[in-house]
This record gives sequence, structure tokens and C-alpha cells, in this order.
Amino acid sequence: MTRLRIEPLTREAFASFGEVLQVDGAERRLINGGTTERFHRLAAFDGDEGSRAIVSLFRGQPRFFPFEIAMMERHPDGSQAFWPLSGRPYLVAVAADVDGRPGEPRVFLATGGQGVNYGRGVWHHPLIAVGEVSDFLVIDREGPGANLQEAAYPVVYTIDGPKLSEA
Amino acid sequence: MTRLRIEPLTREAFASFGEVLQVDGAERRLINGGTTERFHRLAAFDGDEGSRAIVSLFRGQPRFFPFEIAMMERHPDGSQAFWPLSGRPYLVAVAADVDGRPGEPRVFLATGGQGVNYGRGVWHHPLIAVGEVSDFLVIDREGPGANLQEAAYPVVYTIDGPKLSEA
Repeated sequence: MTRLRIEPLTREAFASFGEVLQVDGAERRLINGGTTERFHRLAAFDGDEGSRAIVSLFRGQPRFFPFEIAMMERHPDGSQAFWPLSGRPYLVAVAADVDGRPGEPRVFLATGGQGVNYGRGVWHHPLIAVGEVSDFLVIDREGPGANLQEAAYPVVYTIDGPKLSEA
Repeated sequence: MTRLRIEPLTREAFASFGEVLQVDGAERRLINGGTTERFHRLAAFDGDEGSRAIVSLFRGQPRFFPFEIAMMERHPDGSQAFWPLSGRPYLVAVAADVDGRPGEPRVFLATGGQGVNYGRGVWHHPLIAVGEVSDFLVIDREGPGANLQEAAYPVVYTIDGPKLSEA
């Protein structure tokens, strides 16, 4: 059993897995006669030809800790973005691809003001809500084909509960 | 001067202008081993060829009432979806097209749990936040061209402040 460290979620640390959606550091445009600030392109949808982006709402049950990561999934044909609607921190677990399977997970603690956009084909764990039932707005792909691969880990990885004061 | 009535926002009333994003009435799928409810496809992005959907955050200053509607805008090349992040009600003003210009506005009161997706080319007023500075997650188009038309009204339309107890 391997215990995983929880890292803070930053654009730099997450760059090889996708995009971090946050106002800090985003391009700011003043629009609508100065009545609206547009924080521009926090993320971009990336889908295969013939697909399109759709907006859904995910309502996640909270996970219990220590939490075991036993599998990962990925969507080869489209990116998948999550934006937290509850204002609560949550966990993001991703892995590099190693010969078509997920490598050792990396776990990030996202604040309630940070979203993530998993790149096309990036291994990630299903939603890990923390503490309470939590809603997320999700932008992902609609199109032909299954667009889902799952892989079980041969070993079990464990996450202790995050220190939420750090989120 | 024409005073406009404020209507409740429903899928039926808004159908000719675009989509209402809400959990009520959405297709519900149980995913992630039963830990997550997916309220599926609240809205779909509709863009011209060569464009893609991007996610931005709009931060709107509250409007003051009585509020005057003096213009509309539209995006001919892509839909534009708004989801309220503040949990606060807001107003949505749209118009049918009449010979290439916006007809008389219709005004809807959205709850803090309802989003809207303006269809491609649908005349709408810029963001009308109410009461406080309000954040919205926005899914719209990135691609070549201006994708913006604006039209001033020859007459002024007025909206009284919404009765928020009805939202």
C-alpha cells in the first residue's frame, strides 16, 4: 500500500494533465460598457471531429478517508472540465500514461474557486468530493463512440483526508 | 417609453431563444459507481465550423432600477451559456429577430439555480446582475471573426426592479 501526498493545485504542477480554471492570473477584459469583467478562456474544450461540448451538472457524494485509489479512467475523444458550485475544496487525482495504463497517481487539493479541465486522454479518478454533497458544472463531450477507458491498479494507493485549512 | 413585464424563466417560455439550464427536468444518470449523479446535457454548445467552446468567468456589476433597455447584441457564430455562481437571481432579456433587428424585448427572472444558453444569433441584452456583484461561468465561442452584432433600439424600454421573492 502506498500513501500519496496531497499537493496544492497550481497551473504549473497540473500543466501536463490539463488546465486549472481560476480567476487569478487569467486574462481580464472589461466588456458590456464596463459593467462586466470577463476573465477570458479559463479553459478550452478539445474534442474530436464530429463531437461538441455540452454542459452538465454533477452532484457528488462526499468520499471517506483514508480513501483508496484503485482505478483511473480517461476520455480519449474529449476534454472534461469541472467547476465547483459549492465553494468547497475537493480532490483531483491524475496520472501520467505509462504504456497505455495509468502510472502512480498525483493528488491535488483544489480550492472552491478552482476548476480543472482534464486533457483528452488524461488518466484521472472519478470525482472526489469532500465533506458534503457537492455540485460541479461539467463541460465535456457529446458524440459517437464510448469515449471511456477504465484501468484498475495492481496496487492500492491511499489518501489521508486533506487539511482543508490549506485549501 | 414602454414598461416591460418580467416573466418567470421556464424552458417552454424560453424555447425560441435557447436553452434553460436547470436540474429540474434534466435527464439524471448515476455514474462513478453510484457516487455521482449526472444531470445530463443541460445545454449544448453550437458553433460554426473551425470554432470551439471555451469557458470564461464573467463578473457583473449590479444594475440599478428602473433599468432602461436601449440596445441588444447577438453572436451569429456561436451559442453563449451562462451559469450563475453567486446563487443570486438575475434578469435575462432577449428579443426575436425582425428583419435583422431586435423586436420588443422579453424579460425573464432567472433563479440562482438556472442558467441560460442563448442560441446562435439570438438577440439578447448584456448581463443584468441584480443586487450585488455576481459571477457567472460562461461557455461561448472562440474562433475567427468578430462574432458580435449590436443594435440600438429607436425607443426606450424600461424594467422595474424584480420582485426577488418570486425567484
